[in-house]
This record gives sequence, structure tokens and C-alpha cells, in this order.
Amino acid sequence: MQQIDHIGIAVKSLLTAVPLFEKLLNSPCYKTEVISSENVTTAFLKTGETKIELLESNNEDSVIARYIAKRGEGVHHIAFEVANIEAEMERLVQQGFTLLNDKAKPGADNKLVCFLHPKDTHGILIELCQSAFLPPKE
Amino acid sequence: MQQIDHIGIAVKSLLTAVPLFEKLLNSPCYKTEVISSENVTTAFLKTGETKIELLESNNEDSVIARYIAKRGEGVHHIAFEVANIEAEMERLVQQGFTLLNDKAKPGADNKLVCFLHPKDTHGILIELCQSAFLPPKE
Repeated sequence: MQQIDHIGIAVKSLLTAVPLFEKLLNSPCYKTEVISSENVTTAFLKTGETKIELLESNNEDSVIARYIAKRGEGVHHIAFEVANIEAEMERLVQQGFTLLNDKAKPGADNKLVCFLHPKDTHGILIELCQSAFLPPKE
Repeated sequence: MQQIDHIGIAVKSLLTAVPLFEKLLNSPCYKTEVISSENVTTAFLKTGETKIELLESNNEDSVIARYIAKRGEGVHHIAFEVANIEAEMERLVQQGFTLLNDKAKPGADNKLVCFLHPKDTHGILIELCQSAFLPPKE
């Protein structure tokens, strides 16, 4: 774990959440991205070395829609930047954590990601993310 | 808002949460602190420029105890470092946000803090914190 890459926040509507977080952080939204595989649209804002990722559901069956239906809007996950996601996944499994995906998968922001089961982490969904794809092993 | 200073996480027991987050972050807890005015004990871990603040209640009537009773363990607040807390409080009030305390007050980690009402911020409790006390005006 190198640093917090972003905090993911589930919101009902980017149309209201983006201008509100722009006012709060005094920082403009610099990117939006549709993640078709997750049925969400994301919007990013910078704060220091970290980012806020606002997440709006694109259909009522997405993870974000179900999260909001159950818990309301709020912090959905904390994402940590890692240098080598496969090595970090292996380290965490050895430490007793449960991975939600066995293999790192493509996520927002051109990253490889993996989630940890919140039952092991005091209810908090933790994401690992690796910025650049490692070159294939020779 | 300069950067995220820390993420505050409500936990039932530091005895179990501290070693777990040490394993997760691969980083030792470097400080614990009792905040008598809030009836909580805090434990800090570093991750990059940001910190994780674990919060355990010291009695059943504290803010943290009530939070856990209502929502379970999880992210309690996000704290942003600001250079001048009074100026940032004034800016945010002008932007339509509601402060939970009219004056900055002493918080953990020798900081001056102020909270924003989560009704304005999509359910997320936001803390402003200023590291050093400003010299008194002449």
C-alpha cells in the first residue's frame, strides 16, 4: 500500500453532486467516465495527491444502486495505490484477507483493481489499484 | 482545502482494529490519543501523505457509539487539511454549507477542527482541520 488513490462516494445524481463537491473542495471536476461493466458513471476531483471519485448508478441493479438503497449516499470504498497489484493481493491473502476478485481486473481511470471483502475490514470496502499495466513476464 | 488529512473510521475495538489495519496498510500504528471531550480513543496509521484515524468509543453515549449503533462500523468522517480554518469556514458558509460548530475547536493531533453538517454533503461528515495554531492578531 503506497497511498490513498481515491475515496469512492456513492451519490444519487452527479448533476447535483459534482457542483457541490466542486464548491466543497474548491477544485473542478476534471474527468467523467462511464464504467459499462459496473453500470456506473464516475466523476473525479483532485485534492492534494488524492482524488474523490463520485459514483452514480446507470441502472437500478448496479452495485452502487444497491448500496444507496441499503445505506443511503456516502463513502462506498477507499482505494489504495499499489506498485504491484498481484504481489499485494498475495500478501493480503497470506495475512488472512479475502479478495472479492481472484484476478486483478480493469477499473476506472485505466487502472487494474481488486477489492477486499468488507467482512475482514470493519465493514469498509477496500480497493487496491495499480496505475500502469506491468510489462508481461518474459 | 489542501489535501485529505485523514479518514476517520469508527470501530468497536482498537484492540482488534489496530493490528488488522497494520496488516492491511503494512504500516505500524504510530500514535494513540484519548480525546476526553469526545469520549473517544483514537489510533493513527500513516499511508502516504494521509492518515487513517481509528476511533473507539469510551462510553455508550459518545458520537462514535451512537454512530456504530445506527450504522455499524465504517467510515465516520473525511478530514481535509486547510491553511486557515476560519477563512475556510467563512468560504464554505458563503457557499451554502452548514457548520456543526461556529468556532474552530481543539481536536485530535493538536489541530483546530470544524465539522460540516452531512445533510449538505451527501451524507458524509466532513472535518476541516488546521495543523498549527495561527499567531494571535496584533
